[in-house]
Amino acid sequence: MTQHIYIYSPSSAVRDKAKFRRAVKRLEAMGHEVEVDEAALASHQRFAGDDATRLAAIHRAAASGADVALISRGGYGLSRLLPQIRYKALAKAIDKGTRFVGLSDFTALQMALLATTGSVTWAGPALAEDFGGEEAPDEIMQACFDDLLCGQGEGSGWRLPKATPLAAPVTTALSTARTDFQINQATLWGGNLAMLASLVGTPYLPQIKGGILFIEDISEHPYRVERMLTQLLHAGILGQQKAVVFGQFTNYKLSSHDRGFKLDSVVTWLQSQIKARVLTGLPFGHVATKVLLPVGEKVTLAVEGRDAFLLWGHEH
Amino acid sequence: MTQHIYIYSPSSAVRDKAKFRRAVKRLEAMGHEVEVDEAALASHQRFAGDDATRLAAIHRAAASGADVALISRGGYGLSRLLPQIRYKALAKAIDKGTRFVGLSDFTALQMALLATTGSVTWAGPALAEDFGGEEAPDEIMQACFDDLLCGQGEGSGWRLPKATPLAAPVTTALSTARTDFQINQATLWGGNLAMLASLVGTPYLPQIKGGILFIEDISEHPYRVERMLTQLLHAGILGQQKAVVFGQFTNYKLSSHDRGFKLDSVVTWLQSQIKARVLTGLPFGHVATKVLLPVGEKVTLAVEGRDAFLLWGHEH
Repeated sequence: MTQHIYIYSPSSAVRDKAKFRRAVKRLEAMGHEVEVDEAALASHQRFAGDDATRLAAIHRAAASGADVALISRGGYGLSRLLPQIRYKALAKAIDKGTRFVGLSDFTALQMALLATTGSVTWAGPALAEDFGGEEAPDEIMQACFDDLLCGQGEGSGWRLPKATPLAAPVTTALSTARTDFQINQATLWGGNLAMLASLVGTPYLPQIKGGILFIEDISEHPYRVERMLTQLLHAGILGQQKAVVFGQFTNYKLSSHDRGFKLDSVVTWLQSQIKARVLTGLPFGHVATKVLLPVGEKVTLAVEGRDAFLLWGHEH
Repeated sequence: MTQHIYIYSPSSAVRDKAKFRRAVKRLEAMGHEVEVDEAALASHQRFAGDDATRLAAIHRAAASGADVALISRGGYGLSRLLPQIRYKALAKAIDKGTRFVGLSDFTALQMALLATTGSVTWAGPALAEDFGGEEAPDEIMQACFDDLLCGQGEGSGWRLPKATPLAAPVTTALSTARTDFQINQATLWGGNLAMLASLVGTPYLPQIKGGILFIEDISEHPYRVERMLTQLLHAGILGQQKAVVFGQFTNYKLSSHDRGFKLDSVVTWLQSQIKARVLTGLPFGHVATKVLLPVGEKVTLAVEGRDAFLLWGHEH
């Protein structure tokens, strides 16, 4: 089914234009009508054009009438624009059927939109990185993306990692994740942890109670991940959630100074601090194999043995 | 004048013990009585002992009756402890004459203490890095430290950097910093920007109106500095200050992707966003030449030409 996909650049400048063009061609080869925003390849300092340019691009994406509005890439740049985005225009576009898709820096827009209008957006791929490689796109990501385009996606499942030996003699451990349970009708929200933490205390972080918070990040050492989670904890946000789901944390380096402190230590520490279920292994983040997730949607989270499921749509 | 200096480790583990011992000996050679906390060299993962150990160390420092309680080093670890620190005990010690001194991760404790009790602490050196080098301590830092010990410090001055060519065609520029002005009786507060940002939205960031906020950081790219400032801006904090003073931002790397985006771009952008005076060049941060600053004290900020002064004590 041919879909109208609108490509725009709200964050960092696209430097690898070959990758960008390859991605556009790939989507076209799948039969889609790809519309590229006039400023998609603009460049100003680090940014894909100055603030006014990127702001206009976001509003053009909202006015495009496209089935999907897909970011070219993440990076940095949305934080500065948050006070000037016309959220109602985006909400209206979403009501009419446009699905906004992206990740990383895009989390800022997703959170601000959810906070101001309650509109649902999609955590998912970015054009260049996920469709522009020399090899074919990741099969799981592609299948989830196709499901979104067809309106057929009803959920995603993943295998929970085996319990790891704990670095610290903490008793709570990960064993809670091994008990079968189900959480119904909880708001799914989250995305890039650095972006979430950077919105705490501002009007752009939604106030979600009883939610399922998912997080991912890249190039952040576990101590920084923990510090960001500490901010969410001390701000009272984590205590109000029913579950916290770790996606993929990648591209950080442990050092000899860590002496056994690692991401698992952070997971263990977090579970000792909150009553919410803490799960790991969600295939989402700065990795090729990523699922698409409806941010702001009511979902069901079910765990059976080592199998976890996030379900949405009519069925659950 | 012999002073009683208490050394403790609230954050990361001390790895360079030779440096630590050299620093202790150096303070002793200056004629001071140096008391080393029993857990000052403890180690648990990245930390100077587990949470209970570091918490007890902070409370022992408060109970020590010392003239100065000086951290061994910064790093990471105070964020986790904030809900369990007995701030009233620290405030009582300060009332009795103990001056708490430190920087970096220590900013978390300083902010939480100011938020909960209004007590004044000192942004200044850490034992190992500032007194433990093979060469003599920095003369300016040493002079400021001696002033604190003698109770003679009444302020610090510095030379404002020359106006730099602006990276972006923004009209506000740095020229505001060149106009002579004076701000009286404003609360001086701040410290490490990453720590400040990580406290936004929590009970541990003081609500300072009409203040003078100083900031510094290490290993944070200008875009991250800007993102942290954006958080303070969108949380309404920067709009309530009379001045924002940039200390030293060090050890970051610009890349070809930045295309002219640099720390000056952030300063320029910030000045375009707020009415507060934005100054740069304060000798404070992760550098040898640092002044000591009373965090939470009412101060006067005066600028005459390229000379800036922060004044406190009876005289101003």
